Amino acid sequence: MPRDRAGRRPEGAAPGPRQGWVASTTLHVIGISLAAVSAGMLACSLLEALTSRRDTAALAVSGLLTGVAGGLLWYLTRPGAIRKRQVFATVAWTWILITAVGALPFILAGTFAYGGAGLVEQVVNSLFESASGFSASGSTVLADFDTPGRGLMMYRQLTHWYGGMGVVVLAVAVLPFLGVGGLELVSAEAPGPSSDRLTPRVSETARRLWIVYIGFTAGAALAFFAADGFSSLYDAVAHAFTVAATGGFSVHAESIGHYDSVAVETVAIVCMILGGTSFSLHWRAVADRPLPYHRNSEFRSYLTMLGLAATIIVLLLWLENGLPLGSSIRAGVFTVVSLGTSTGLSNATGPGSPSDYVLWVAGAQLVLLLLMVVGGCSGSTSGGIKVLRMRVLGLTMLRSVRHTQTPRAVIPIRLGRDVVSETVVSRVAGFFLLHFVLMACGLLAVTALEGDLESSLGAVVSALGNMGPALNEAGPTSNYAAAFSQPARLVLALLMVIGRLEIFPILLAAMDLAVRGRAALRHGPVSFQHLSRRLESFTESRSDDP
Amino acid sequence: MPRDRAGRRPEGAAPGPRQGWVASTTLHVIGISLAAVSAGMLACSLLEALTSRRDTAALAVSGLLTGVAGGLLWYLTRPGAIRKRQVFATVAWTWILITAVGALPFILAGTFAYGGAGLVEQVVNSLFESASGFSASGSTVLADFDTPGRGLMMYRQLTHWYGGMGVVVLAVAVLPFLGVGGLELVSAEAPGPSSDRLTPRVSETARRLWIVYIGFTAGAALAFFAADGFSSLYDAVAHAFTVAATGGFSVHAESIGHYDSVAVETVAIVCMILGGTSFSLHWRAVADRPLPYHRNSEFRSYLTMLGLAATIIVLLLWLENGLPLGSSIRAGVFTVVSLGTSTGLSNATGPGSPSDYVLWVAGAQLVLLLLMVVGGCSGSTSGGIKVLRMRVLGLTMLRSVRHTQTPRAVIPIRLGRDVVSETVVSRVAGFFLLHFVLMACGLLAVTALEGDLESSLGAVVSALGNMGPALNEAGPTSNYAAAFSQPARLVLALLMVIGRLEIFPILLAAMDLAVRGRAALRHGPVSFQHLSRRLESFTESRSDDP
Repeated sequence: MPRDRAGRRPEGAAPGPRQGWVASTTLHVIGISLAAVSAGMLACSLLEALTSRRDTAALAVSGLLTGVAGGLLWYLTRPGAIRKRQVFATVAWTWILITAVGALPFILAGTFAYGGAGLVEQVVNSLFESASGFSASGSTVLADFDTPGRGLMMYRQLTHWYGGMGVVVLAVAVLPFLGVGGLELVSAEAPGPSSDRLTPRVSETARRLWIVYIGFTAGAALAFFAADGFSSLYDAVAHAFTVAATGGFSVHAESIGHYDSVAVETVAIVCMILGGTSFSLHWRAVADRPLPYHRNSEFRSYLTMLGLAATIIVLLLWLENGLPLGSSIRAGVFTVVSLGTSTGLSNATGPGSPSDYVLWVAGAQLVLLLLMVVGGCSGSTSGGIKVLRMRVLGLTMLRSVRHTQTPRAVIPIRLGRDVVSETVVSRVAGFFLLHFVLMACGLLAVTALEGDLESSLGAVVSALGNMGPALNEAGPTSNYAAAFSQPARLVLALLMVIGRLEIFPILLAAMDLAVRGRAALRHGPVSFQHLSRRLESFTESRSDDP
Repeated sequence: MPRDRAGRRPEGAAPGPRQGWVASTTLHVIGISLAAVSAGMLACSLLEALTSRRDTAALAVSGLLTGVAGGLLWYLTRPGAIRKRQVFATVAWTWILITAVGALPFILAGTFAYGGAGLVEQVVNSLFESASGFSASGSTVLADFDTPGRGLMMYRQLTHWYGGMGVVVLAVAVLPFLGVGGLELVSAEAPGPSSDRLTPRVSETARRLWIVYIGFTAGAALAFFAADGFSSLYDAVAHAFTVAATGGFSVHAESIGHYDSVAVETVAIVCMILGGTSFSLHWRAVADRPLPYHRNSEFRSYLTMLGLAATIIVLLLWLENGLPLGSSIRAGVFTVVSLGTSTGLSNATGPGSPSDYVLWVAGAQLVLLLLMVVGGCSGSTSGGIKVLRMRVLGLTMLRSVRHTQTPRAVIPIRLGRDVVSETVVSRVAGFFLLHFVLMACGLLAVTALEGDLESSLGAVVSALGNMGPALNEAGPTSNYAAAFSQPARLVLALLMVIGRLEIFPILLAAMDLAVRGRAALRHGPVSFQHLSRRLESFTESRSDDP
């Protein structure tokens, strides 16, 4: 029976051998996740069969393949003990594999087989779309919104929904039931530095988050359906998936601009703001009245940020871009909320309309860029650095100013009534720097593969913040396929996954890979047996390490 | 006799009343600084009288006015006690006043009176040029390099030289002699977080720094003179001023490209690298052999950074821009050193030549932008965040990665053999954040006044880092007057001063102003007498405060 390094029996581990042959938490989690994605694919295949029928086979085959692979993994493995450092690798590899498998329906359906695209370009585009979907970014390389069937388009929306709250959070809801203590998984996975844990028991926490998430999605779908302009329940559900996940995909090329309806835009604005709010706050709103929102300092900062940005942008649009005040407010508020919550929906009715923000003055575009970097609240489905971290950073900055005058004063950093420990302050600063270094590296890679600094900057910030649309050539009415070369698109897809997992899991998995690669080189010559053993130990849990 | 808050007699304060009527360290320092600038103006007036004669009167009148004002202030005031918080205000106001007075010769000579510029535009341009000069930035609005006389052009170079090491450091060399403990002035003024103080006595430190600075400038002038292509001692001295201060002004419109000589460029490269190195390291190289450079970890990081950036850029120029390898090396290395030391000289022979980096691929321009943000070593005349701070930040980042695996480990941050205290780490992080917030605010202001995000970004980064040339429309062969509106130029001039003083002095002076303004509003109605008393107490030292 696996024991962790200290020799203790892992908390909650099964007391004896179970059905699975191999003890590997990583493979087990991947199995469960694949099964969940497979269920989504099959459901969408059913929808496709009932409606347009074009892509039924592609979805069904993908679903069956994924389901068989997932089911086998699930059945053949059992969760072993999991150490803290492995949790990150588990999260990273699960997410990467899901992204790869999630591209299958697009490849099989030939969704990107237009404009003379070869197989390689189709695969690159499918991977990009899948990465954008599961990371709830919303950047798209899809140019033709009419040919794909309704089931496939709904699958595309569904990737957001899975991704938004986390394919791995899904697994976390199951893991405790299987007897693996997954608190570390939650802390690596649940977006943002969650300040309150709701309950100490992970399974209960995950269950509550999912109840809120599903309830929120259903509510959003009803609200969209009730609002003018929505032609069908299909549209309403599709966009509810997007706002709940603060994704950005739409079933229409013009996004929300397709409806050109103030009512629909208002529903979208409210839902996006709620999607960018901590879901544990939503749970408390459901469970304990009165409403807890106004007492949450991060939520207040978040609304202040959105309000301030909207005011600046509306003024700039009105006074400098020469738009009428009404159009300025409609375009400005929607775009600020969409980008401030890292959603990425657009209410531009077409290129050149007031909401086509690549035509805005540079000052307004800069505000959007800053919003992209910040993102929404911690514990929400939005991306970026998160308001909570920005507050810690802002307070650190103010403290350094105060220290110039009183150098020896001990000035604690407070959030609401809580004092933030200096360790946390240092980690937040580290995360922020890492974010910037990654941004610089990504930008270097994309600009080396591309031509234009402004488009690249926008795209890299957008990808890392899981935003969706970017600036210049990759604006809200444009398409990433036209703006970026294939290698650049792959870099951006990778940045989306890295950003979604808040950098550390992918970074640690990559470091782990490098260490193992170096060890393999040192211990060479590498026989086939040696290699297969290494491969095995790599994908498996290291629960049997000394 | 003034005493500080704790009742101790300020260290080194004069034991009794002296010649000055008013006890005000701020006014006294301003007086000394004005006198020094006046001496420079008069010397350049003499040069002008001996050569082109065109601008003799302008320089002489400016010099006399400045000299009389400075002399009076010097004579009428005496240094009082100075508290830590006042030192920042003293530095800030001195620098702002010197910048304003330093614009006089340009205004009187009508240096910017071409292209139908009105008086307002001439004043704006003169202030910009003066701010750029005294902050050792090197951004210029001068389009016509032929009309101004040699004296005036040399005065323009001289502003760099004064600014580089600090007009106020000049005063610090005198202050201790006058009996005012000025260690705080050095820590606010000497660029960067100086890790070693050389000697505890300020006057001795300042004297040594000046010896090194003057010696370095003389050496650079001789080296330039000896190198091919320099037509005169005048050119050699002018460019020696620039490299010693890591400024960027040249007496030629094409900067170093005017000579089109590898020898001259090599001398410039070596001098720029030395100018971006800590001057206390230079002193130790002179005083104690063997050479201390290779044992200094910051210097090693600095050279590594330059080498790495040059390699990337040369490869990009060669492979992506399609330049010949020779041209790539010559253009790449010079530009990297020039921008990595925050100098800003260019060896572009004209628009479209290999060193005109606005034509480089975006990746290469991005590397330049990152170099601009970092700057040279602490304790040097270069600008930016400084290599030492970047190292602390990088180590903080790495620590946050290590903490994901060993959350409870205590990991100290080391520079060489020294452990950096957590207070310093937190302050460096605060400074970095402040730098970025200021960059965002500056960018917001400039883009709101201008059109182009890329030019604005380059210009703001360049101004805050005391660089000189920027990207796009404000590149090495361009001119800020064509690229930015008048209000935008004033914002950039302000950013240069803020960046030169490493943000805090100007920020604290502005906060002080705000606090006083609010107090004045609260205690209103404001009579004339009241106002004049406020004004008085504002410019004077607060040594008589309770």
